[in-house]
Formats: sequence, C-alpha cells, structure tokens
Amino acid sequence: MAYNIVSLNELTAQFKKLPGIGEKTAQRLAFYVITAPEEYATRFSSALLSARSKIRLCKNCQALSDSEVCPVCSDAARDTGIICVVSDPKDVLAFERTREYRGVYHVLHGVISPLDGVSPDKLKIRELLARLSDGNVREVIMATDPTVEGEATASYIARFIKPMGIKITRLAYGVPVGGNLEYADEVTLQRALEGRNEI
Amino acid sequence: MAYNIVSLNELTAQFKKLPGIGEKTAQRLAFYVITAPEEYATRFSSALLSARSKIRLCKNCQALSDSEVCPVCSDAARDTGIICVVSDPKDVLAFERTREYRGVYHVLHGVISPLDGVSPDKLKIRELLARLSDGNVREVIMATDPTVEGEATASYIARFIKPMGIKITRLAYGVPVGGNLEYADEVTLQRALEGRNEI
Repeated sequence: MAYNIVSLNELTAQFKKLPGIGEKTAQRLAFYVITAPEEYATRFSSALLSARSKIRLCKNCQALSDSEVCPVCSDAARDTGIICVVSDPKDVLAFERTREYRGVYHVLHGVISPLDGVSPDKLKIRELLARLSDGNVREVIMATDPTVEGEATASYIARFIKPMGIKITRLAYGVPVGGNLEYADEVTLQRALEGRNEI
Repeated sequence: MAYNIVSLNELTAQFKKLPGIGEKTAQRLAFYVITAPEEYATRFSSALLSARSKIRLCKNCQALSDSEVCPVCSDAARDTGIICVVSDPKDVLAFERTREYRGVYHVLHGVISPLDGVSPDKLKIRELLARLSDGNVREVIMATDPTVEGEATASYIARFIKPMGIKITRLAYGVPVGGNLEYADEVTLQRALEGRNEI
C-alpha cells in the first residue's frame, strides 16, 4: 500500500494474529488504540506483559493461575474428592460460572488427536493419575467436549481409572436449555430421548 | 467470579475496551495471548506503545502519520491541485486502496453533529481553508460519509469554498458494485436513477 505508516501497520499486524480477527477488524482496533487516550495504550501494553509473565499452570490441577496453586485448589471449602476433568483451561471458567460445582478440576490441555499430532503423552494425563493414587478421590467427572476427540480422550483415560475402583461419570447429553428443538441435530435429540427423565 | 486470576482479568478488561469486543471475545483473546509464545506478548506490547507514541497528524493534511508530513503529502508525484476531504483518517486508507486517486487529502476528524457536541470549530476546517488560500487548488472533492451529518458537513464547508472560485465536487451516489438491487434502500436507488449514465 502506498500509505505506509510503519508503526500503525505493525500494530495492525499484531492484532491480526489474534484468533478471529481479520485485516479490517485489526485495522479498526489499531486505529482505536492510537486515537484513544494515551493511558489506554500504556495500560493495555503492561497488561499484556504482566499476564503473559505471571500466569502459569497450577501445580496441582494444571489450570491457569497467577500463583503456585490456583484459586480453586487453594479454597479449603472445595470437595477434593470429586475431580472434573476438562480439556481446556477456559472450561474451568465455564463451570465456575455455574456457581454449582463444588469439587475441583483437572485440565488436560488438549484432546487426543492423532491427525493433529496430539498423542496421549502430550496431555496432562500422568498428572491426573498421580492425583488419583492417594485414594482420596471418590469420583472423576469426564467433562471433555462432546466431540469425537473429546469422547475418545474420555474413554482412553477411563480405562486407566476403572481399575482403581473410582467412580467415573460423563456429562449428560441432551438439548441445550433455551435452545430450539427445530435446530437440534438428530444425534443430540436421540441422546436427549435416551436420557429422558420422569417428571 | 470465584475464579479470580488478577492479571488475566486485567488483560481481558483491556481487550473489552476495544470497539466491538464483548466479554466472551475479550476472554478468548486474553487466553490466546497467555498461551501463545511469549514473544507475541512482547511484540504486541511494544507495538501498542510505539504506535501510540509515534503517530501524530500530518501538519499539512491532518492524516495520521509517523513523520511530520504524511506519505501522501511528501510524495512529489501526487497532484496537490486536488484535495479529497474526508471525515475520518481511515477513509484515507480506503481511497489509497483504490490505487486510482492521485490527488491529496484533508482529514476533518469528524462531522458536524450538534447532538454529539461537535461544532464546526472542533473539525480541521480552518486548516483546510488555509490550504486553499494560496490559489493552487483547482478542485475540492467532498468525500464525507453519505449520511445526514456527512452531507451537512459537506454543505457547510462548501459555502466557504464557493466564493474562492474553486470547483467543488461530491462523490457519486448509486448502487454499490457487487451489491444486490433487491437489498438497496429506496433513497440509494432513487439517487442511482437520477445519476444514470448512457452506455
């Protein structure tokens, strides 16, 4: 482009690397930053560095944390006898939003996916099994995504846990609350029928 | 939320301030940053600071620039006899993308909008009139947005320029190329009819 403002182009390029942000949006965001009060760029800039350098994995459950042990694991009121196994750190936040779950978590950081080169040893499965070895855990909830890879990962891990005599459960399948039956796919509907409850 | 990771929440908050970025997207972007290679956060961070501190307005046309005079104004091949007046710095990039326009620009930095407290003296109108006073400009293209405020701003400025004997033009109205007539509003269609050309 003839109109080459180096520092603006560089900022646009950085925005464009974010997931779901295309060229036009990146440009719009970059323009916003340079026209917003200077304080914004300064705060944004240090928030980036601070988050990236401070956040690590909880040594216990592998969730994201800015201390050695995450807020859930360090909360004495949580039931450490129930572990909810999720694939992604974001899933922990989704469960916490329900304000219902009182157990703890374990984050796998991915699902088994041979096509993407993700073998079981790349996931935090060893760390999960180590947590189960002390005999205090009564139940493991497999809460990986309801996808082919999520199912396969759950089955794979279940095979190791079953011999330990720990109860393993899976999230219920069914139609989403507030959803429209018309748009539900047949597999979901079939599972919703299978899991029907008396009212 | 129970799950309170201070530095992550702060980064999410900064993303959320960007236009068009809601809570969920902000969270997704923040997660991306903390899981991407550390180099990304560092480069993004310095791009923010650099763009914000280096970019200023071209002393001539008021477009964004990282030098005293913008790339267009400092290009000797451009025709300084034609000035395209736009309301927003982003509009300069839009025109430059056409690779057709060979004149120069003038950025007003807004449109007259009494309801939003934008009076004519808040815009770079004085700077535009100063540029026209040396008698070298043959034509001023009013390229403010085709909105009520854009029109009003164009008319307002035209009143000052007309007495100088300089030709004033306005962008053509019509149906957008590649658009679907079915979805064109009646005003646009009416203008397209009025401006019809023989083929």
